[in-house]
Amino acid sequence: MRTPQKPSPMPFQRYVPFQDQITVSVPDRTWPDQVITAAPRWCAVDLRDGNQALIDPMSPERKHRMFDLLVSMGYKEIEVGFPSASQTDFDFVRQLIEQGKIPDDVYIQVLTQCREHLIERTFEAIAGAPRAIVHLYNSTSILQREVVFKQDRAGIVDIATTGARLCKKFEEQLLADQPETEIVYQYSPESFTGTELDFAAHISNEVVEVLGATAEKPVIINLPATVEMATPDVYADSIEWMHRNLQPREAIILSLHPHNDRGTGVAAAELGYKAGADRIEGCLFGNGERTGNVDLVTLGMNLFSQGVDPEIDFRNMEEIRRTVEHCNQMPVPERSPYGGDLVFTAFSGSHQDAINKGFAHMDARAESEGRAREDITWGVPYLPIDPKDIGRSYEAVIRVNSQSGKGGVSYVLKAERGIELPRRTQIEFSGVIQRRADVQGGEVTPTEIWQMFQDEYLPADDGDKQWGHYRLGKVETSSTADGGFSMDLELQTNGTPRTITGAGNGPIDALLRILAAEGVDVRLLDYTEHAMSSGGDAQAASFVELAVGERVLWGVGIDYNTTLASLQAVFSAVNRAIRDS
Amino acid sequence: MRTPQKPSPMPFQRYVPFQDQITVSVPDRTWPDQVITAAPRWCAVDLRDGNQALIDPMSPERKHRMFDLLVSMGYKEIEVGFPSASQTDFDFVRQLIEQGKIPDDVYIQVLTQCREHLIERTFEAIAGAPRAIVHLYNSTSILQREVVFKQDRAGIVDIATTGARLCKKFEEQLLADQPETEIVYQYSPESFTGTELDFAAHISNEVVEVLGATAEKPVIINLPATVEMATPDVYADSIEWMHRNLQPREAIILSLHPHNDRGTGVAAAELGYKAGADRIEGCLFGNGERTGNVDLVTLGMNLFSQGVDPEIDFRNMEEIRRTVEHCNQMPVPERSPYGGDLVFTAFSGSHQDAINKGFAHMDARAESEGRAREDITWGVPYLPIDPKDIGRSYEAVIRVNSQSGKGGVSYVLKAERGIELPRRTQIEFSGVIQRRADVQGGEVTPTEIWQMFQDEYLPADDGDKQWGHYRLGKVETSSTADGGFSMDLELQTNGTPRTITGAGNGPIDALLRILAAEGVDVRLLDYTEHAMSSGGDAQAASFVELAVGERVLWGVGIDYNTTLASLQAVFSAVNRAIRDS
Repeated sequence: MRTPQKPSPMPFQRYVPFQDQITVSVPDRTWPDQVITAAPRWCAVDLRDGNQALIDPMSPERKHRMFDLLVSMGYKEIEVGFPSASQTDFDFVRQLIEQGKIPDDVYIQVLTQCREHLIERTFEAIAGAPRAIVHLYNSTSILQREVVFKQDRAGIVDIATTGARLCKKFEEQLLADQPETEIVYQYSPESFTGTELDFAAHISNEVVEVLGATAEKPVIINLPATVEMATPDVYADSIEWMHRNLQPREAIILSLHPHNDRGTGVAAAELGYKAGADRIEGCLFGNGERTGNVDLVTLGMNLFSQGVDPEIDFRNMEEIRRTVEHCNQMPVPERSPYGGDLVFTAFSGSHQDAINKGFAHMDARAESEGRAREDITWGVPYLPIDPKDIGRSYEAVIRVNSQSGKGGVSYVLKAERGIELPRRTQIEFSGVIQRRADVQGGEVTPTEIWQMFQDEYLPADDGDKQWGHYRLGKVETSSTADGGFSMDLELQTNGTPRTITGAGNGPIDALLRILAAEGVDVRLLDYTEHAMSSGGDAQAASFVELAVGERVLWGVGIDYNTTLASLQAVFSAVNRAIRDS
Repeated sequence: MRTPQKPSPMPFQRYVPFQDQITVSVPDRTWPDQVITAAPRWCAVDLRDGNQALIDPMSPERKHRMFDLLVSMGYKEIEVGFPSASQTDFDFVRQLIEQGKIPDDVYIQVLTQCREHLIERTFEAIAGAPRAIVHLYNSTSILQREVVFKQDRAGIVDIATTGARLCKKFEEQLLADQPETEIVYQYSPESFTGTELDFAAHISNEVVEVLGATAEKPVIINLPATVEMATPDVYADSIEWMHRNLQPREAIILSLHPHNDRGTGVAAAELGYKAGADRIEGCLFGNGERTGNVDLVTLGMNLFSQGVDPEIDFRNMEEIRRTVEHCNQMPVPERSPYGGDLVFTAFSGSHQDAINKGFAHMDARAESEGRAREDITWGVPYLPIDPKDIGRSYEAVIRVNSQSGKGGVSYVLKAERGIELPRRTQIEFSGVIQRRADVQGGEVTPTEIWQMFQDEYLPADDGDKQWGHYRLGKVETSSTADGGFSMDLELQTNGTPRTITGAGNGPIDALLRILAAEGVDVRLLDYTEHAMSSGGDAQAASFVELAVGERVLWGVGIDYNTTLASLQAVFSAVNRAIRDS
């Protein structure tokens, strides 16, 4: 069997292989024999490299939420901006400092180019911070030297060392005023992956010398894969080479900054760390320019799955994901490791069967050891970790109608009812179907799916099926020109009507405030609404994801009036929580 | 500067490090010194492993589109299903064969477990195919042996060799009827990454012997990272070990099947290929169970970026992405390498500046060499490949309002007008803003953004600004119970009204048919609509992405009537194409 594969018409001849651009030769490499047994120092750059890659950069509110999230997770080095290049970043750094938002053991990090007025402005930005990392960079790659800077090696070194000298000058001025401040320096030969190794080591060592680094007061040398240019083992070789040639090594914290152009950013970080690095810079869920920065969630959780403490708290992965999605205004992909919606979902029957046997085996082991399932070593097929350890759950999605090739619950609801379930609602409702199918056995028809959907989410009036603690009666709303909103709604509690007035920034907000006043512990997590057909007479289907007490669940509302649909959805979720409790 | 990082409360002690589960020791490894200079044999498993991981498995229509796409790109080995486990898969395989859909040089591949009735059914499925790969598997990992199969090593080997013997029996029967058929075998020790290497080699070699493999008639041994369990260099070590211990090696095609649980599936495939593999199985854009199968797009394009022919045609990446999104009913993430919406977009001013200088330098080089820019070697900062080589373009997104921290065009439109631009519309409109800002200079205010948006997308009536080849007058629609739809619309062409009747499955479809009859070459690529506020009096904003002749562009419609909004959006795109041509 010879392969019938044929040459393609792609113009591959235009591209120069990496090994013909940069020599990386470490035949006596030692990194492949290393094993990772401890977490690196982490630096989160979501507020700088991540933020600069967003279509909608973060507002101050979103920046503060991201900063607070990173602190709460345990990150101690956080790049917060490029204050000399952006007034917004400058203002944010000042707010952090002046409002006392920076915990005692957290270093804020600020980026700057090597030019005098930018460095001066950078020191203005950090004045008053108890400790800060000043991150100096210039681009050193062959391509950028030729195309952008039109300078030889000496000229590029001069840019960096001049910058370093200016830093010392402005540091002196700052310390004269605030002698308690701790300033740490970081230097990045930007576009390191396109730089000859000997030159990268030379320029870094020159900067280290100017800064007067010592083992007691080390400098961070950060080696960015600004563009990922080769396989990750080659990056690891280059890191091992630098590890051997950076001088004095004991005065240097060797840092990695992988991007993901070749889809191997996580691997580059892991292999580079084995090759001698001390520290890794990245972003939560891999946000960042183009294909993104390396994903700090995957890196940390990969350690965890190997019995190594990541030194970061990922126990509430859903909350982390939601906050990141809010701050970045971009979705975390469904298949993003550890955090994506689908990564603990099994569709295949043989996988589900093996997983069930795995859980049963763990229960038996736990019983024989006299411990809880949560306390024994993990081992379940197809689930690399226990989803519960990060506040998630395993979901088995069954094929409701496998014979037709239109297997999904959501397909049936869309094709037959015009309802498009959001992804997480699909997963939740699949669990409902699963439980009912387990009881009934056999295939589930489209008619039965629709009946189950109504039973689960929509209030029922008929006889013994009746449920729904809260019912909605008449609703009157009033909006003012300045954005004010108020609402009178008739609320029936177990059949007794009352009229309640609420206010907020809109109908859902007002309703949530009303429910809070009623003593319902409720928080909105997600909301979406769509027309169920394209005509002007379309009904709207509205979906809300609520946290009600400890539980996270969806509600659905369907109405010709979009406002009513969304209010019904809130009641649906709250009523479900009350019904099931 | 010691790190202030602290131990986390995560229960990492529950996890057994990989090296304590499986011994992989290849101290004399040679793979890190290898360089990839040719493409592997590819096998696309989108229709099996990919399909089985979808919430909505593909309908027959979507399966045929995926198969045709894979064939058109140049894949010669395509796993098309698990016909003995699914009637839908069985029917699809029969359709491919009976409708003559399989090109002469393409191998379809079908998966089966080792049980007799399943193998028999598998051979029924492929009867009449000129050539096919029968893919036999059983699970071999320590965990699955103990938890799922409760068998010792000999029992597990017996499952595999019995399956192989049954295959030979049913092959004989098939060849008696159809002697021209070429049957190739593939065996997977499933959950290979959790299997002791000596056992994986032993069971594979036993199967190879039963099947009577020779150099002329080799067997594919496929080593799945069913769950990714260690760093990719460890997977490569295990592949090099297998490469040395599979016997007779010349009778074996060594195949990889990485998943992505640790976010390093691409790296595992690349390093494993360096370690001696011949073949890689994966899915377009990394669809597949949980975190996905390895991404065939990234693997192929990574080769391309190194001057190696991927032997796959990626020249129309947008069409590939759209087809995959249609078939999988899942979005390709914005940062997915090579294919994601944002991967050739630069936001940072310094990146944009360097890119512009890179293009200028390429133009100068091209001129001095007397060749076109497309014919000289690529070298532009921050762009690993020329987007044009895959039918895409570089986009510079400027910050329109950097001082406020609410920088994005889309933020302004959302906050001030209630319009939520779809991602690709954001990118397109940013280009419009960019071009105007280059002419005008300076900051662009929210008012100017809204004016530019109206000028660009919405028909104008006033004086010299008037544009819009087609105008919409009165619209009357009629829907019947059986899904029929017809529409009378008053169409003004440069001011002259006519009433035209059209039909289709809905308003947009009917309008596109009317325009086609008018001689406009137009095709719908995407459509979305949303309410611009939450009140019952909300206007709807509708967005359509159309291919009009050679050009792909968006149209926008805003109306209280959702139907009219969508029709206006179609006219907006068509009118823009006519205006700009």
